Amino acid sequence: MSETADFLFIHAHLFTMEGSGVGYVEDGAVAVRDGLIIDVGPTPALQARFVATETIDASRHALLPGLIDAHMHTPWAVVRGVAQDVAHWMQKGLAPYARHLHREAALAGSWLNVLEALKAGTTTMGDFAHPIDGWAEIFAAVGVRAVLTATINALPPGQMASWRVGDLYPFDDAVAERCIREALALAAEWHGAENGRITVMFGPQAADMLALDHLRHIKRLAAAEGLMIHMHVAQGDREIDQMVKRYGKRTPAFLEQIGYLDDQLLAVHLTEATEEETAQIAYSGARMVLCSGSIGIIDGIVPPAVAFRSAGGLVALGSDQAAGNNCNNIFNEMKLTALFNKIKHRDPTVMPAWEVLRMATIEGAQALGLGHEIGSIRRGKKADLILVDLDALNLMPTLTAPIRNLVPNLVYAATGHEVDLVMVDGRVLVRNGRVLTVDEAAVREEVQQRAWEVAAAVKRDPIHLDMALLQAMDEGKL
Amino acid sequence: MSETADFLFIHAHLFTMEGSGVGYVEDGAVAVRDGLIIDVGPTPALQARFVATETIDASRHALLPGLIDAHMHTPWAVVRGVAQDVAHWMQKGLAPYARHLHREAALAGSWLNVLEALKAGTTTMGDFAHPIDGWAEIFAAVGVRAVLTATINALPPGQMASWRVGDLYPFDDAVAERCIREALALAAEWHGAENGRITVMFGPQAADMLALDHLRHIKRLAAAEGLMIHMHVAQGDREIDQMVKRYGKRTPAFLEQIGYLDDQLLAVHLTEATEEETAQIAYSGARMVLCSGSIGIIDGIVPPAVAFRSAGGLVALGSDQAAGNNCNNIFNEMKLTALFNKIKHRDPTVMPAWEVLRMATIEGAQALGLGHEIGSIRRGKKADLILVDLDALNLMPTLTAPIRNLVPNLVYAATGHEVDLVMVDGRVLVRNGRVLTVDEAAVREEVQQRAWEVAAAVKRDPIHLDMALLQAMDEGKL
Repeated sequence: MSETADFLFIHAHLFTMEGSGVGYVEDGAVAVRDGLIIDVGPTPALQARFVATETIDASRHALLPGLIDAHMHTPWAVVRGVAQDVAHWMQKGLAPYARHLHREAALAGSWLNVLEALKAGTTTMGDFAHPIDGWAEIFAAVGVRAVLTATINALPPGQMASWRVGDLYPFDDAVAERCIREALALAAEWHGAENGRITVMFGPQAADMLALDHLRHIKRLAAAEGLMIHMHVAQGDREIDQMVKRYGKRTPAFLEQIGYLDDQLLAVHLTEATEEETAQIAYSGARMVLCSGSIGIIDGIVPPAVAFRSAGGLVALGSDQAAGNNCNNIFNEMKLTALFNKIKHRDPTVMPAWEVLRMATIEGAQALGLGHEIGSIRRGKKADLILVDLDALNLMPTLTAPIRNLVPNLVYAATGHEVDLVMVDGRVLVRNGRVLTVDEAAVREEVQQRAWEVAAAVKRDPIHLDMALLQAMDEGKL
Repeated sequence: MSETADFLFIHAHLFTMEGSGVGYVEDGAVAVRDGLIIDVGPTPALQARFVATETIDASRHALLPGLIDAHMHTPWAVVRGVAQDVAHWMQKGLAPYARHLHREAALAGSWLNVLEALKAGTTTMGDFAHPIDGWAEIFAAVGVRAVLTATINALPPGQMASWRVGDLYPFDDAVAERCIREALALAAEWHGAENGRITVMFGPQAADMLALDHLRHIKRLAAAEGLMIHMHVAQGDREIDQMVKRYGKRTPAFLEQIGYLDDQLLAVHLTEATEEETAQIAYSGARMVLCSGSIGIIDGIVPPAVAFRSAGGLVALGSDQAAGNNCNNIFNEMKLTALFNKIKHRDPTVMPAWEVLRMATIEGAQALGLGHEIGSIRRGKKADLILVDLDALNLMPTLTAPIRNLVPNLVYAATGHEVDLVMVDGRVLVRNGRVLTVDEAAVREEVQQRAWEVAAAVKRDPIHLDMALLQAMDEGKL
């Protein structure tokens, strides 16, 4: 007697990501009903068991869990590519744009970034931004899974560009209080919304961007609300310098003293963490987000993810913001993560393809506290699935024995453009590479218009004369 | 009075790569006739001057010189992805496949690789391979520009897998002599063929793979034929170990003594060259090929291209072989080159986007001795041109002031899939992302079939039991 399914994927090169490896199933099938994975196994067995509303022939495709991007700042996509190849990236590159990133521009950036990531197979987006009206609604409208974090800091807005490198940042209690109110409102409205697709974390931006009292208050609130804390930690020499000047200690020791190091912390970057500090954070149960592309471009540094994993810590991947990283694509992050760490350790066996594929799926899910719902293809989990076209020239050929070449090619050769189909919560959002839920052309037009507005405002603002890249413009290098 | 043109590109974001920067022209136009660029300038001026058979509206596109890949081994694409994440890549990863790479498989690999590279905007391909029948014909049939190098070594074929790490390789004079005859025949038939689109270099594979007499003979022959020498130099600790054991000196000193260090040498990799050796090679006038992706994956090393350039040397980019690097795509190489070198030097200003774009175009052309013909968009040069779609989500938005974001996005965000049109020698080979000159579907089918044959032969050969990745297969990691 047949059971019903909404979708039955058949004949796939299936990677369930269950167990300790990649969980490969040859000629694999997955049945989906009411947004959930209801069965996983060989195609003949599932074909015998289910009658599906739609059967999707996944021949010559890899079927994987949707990819997880644990750390983005989507609004910044609206000024992609304006601040590369500079020292003091924040002050000398980004700051003039930060000052003129008006609400409509920020929303256009989020639209752009969400579609870009979705088309490249990212189904869960961990976004960290000011919670302006309309921001959360974008994730809801597109239909992706999101972990939203409202930025909380105590920094007077619009002043970043005028700080001198090395001066202590000024704090404004009113700013911190407003941010906290907004974060609470976001949690009240969105945590668990959209069939649970949207969840919320608390986001003290960094230990150097809030006063001690603010940080203590936020930790108490997060614990009371049952929300994780998503925070930049040891994200640059700039931060360490601020912390040492203000408290006489580096960030990890400071966070330990104020009770932040526990399994409710999602610690982003750890760029400047020593081996010892890295192990300390991992032992605490805190999770790490590794943003290889962003930190590579902005700082020329490979964060200590190998050490963090060696100490037993969970690592998720993040694409950070397009104004620094230029793209928000987890295929890109997988590849850069594997390569950068081989180079850092001068060893080609470090961070093999399967490890980074696990970080982009099941381990990323676990790091976000969502390992019970997503990140692998298992009966009862949410149906967040992607199909990757193995007939793309750059992924050919497909070999299965004696060595199966699919995982190395997914990590080292795929670009994200090979993603044909994306399903989130049992709903097809992308088919044949096209977004079904929103009008992509309208998003493109809006993005271009708003980006021009921001750039024009920057050009009118004398502060732009301090930008490092003006010299490259003058020299004909851009 | 109007002049005629075959093609007139108008309204482009034009990067001529002339001068010392990127040669940006806003609303730029290029006229092409009889395979040559006949004019370059602002759109209104060229529209007034020319009547073209076809006018191509390049609005919202970047128009660039075709990209140059100075070092490939195209046959290996047929076993893409079988040897990553391993130590002793050649012996423990690739060797079993090398033994079973039969002629039809090698040709299928070349077909695959040429189409993959072409679609990603590579117009000049520097291929290094055994000159089997039908190999050069592939480049001619597709219509790309090629610099072909026939492999010359003295290594008894099929034995690589049985060498023990650290033993001196055996040499066979008959093998070297046959290789030299084949290289001479290739040069006689193909150097300057296809309207000059195909040229030839001499390819002693590496200083450790030929006896001293062979190397001297090859240098004399190359000088007599007026051909450059394309050679792997200091490509790994394996090579240095062989050289020290055989001659008591490292490769660069050895090459200097036998007269190889001059401006006729295209030296590939320099993986193990010290700073001093790197400068020595650059000062000699020899050119370097930097294969960032390949050496990153195989060795976890960033070759000394920054030092080579600091010493005044010319550097071209190369994608090497897909069995190690997994892809043959110069957008990928530009990005990895910029990022790896920032990391190596822990400095985000190292290898900025414009520098790597120059290495992929004009400086790459100069390194290959083709700087007078290709590599920039200038009146009188060959019409090798590409159009990149700036409306691809991952390249949006387009900003031109106060900072122009196009070059950073082309280097840090593009994947090659955004290439819409490719012209070589004034002929459109790719349009709307589709190859016009050959049947891509037929190539795909042939590649898959031949790849299976090779893999099946490897599986039957007991030597495959020595492959490092078998353990990963057993553990469910592939």
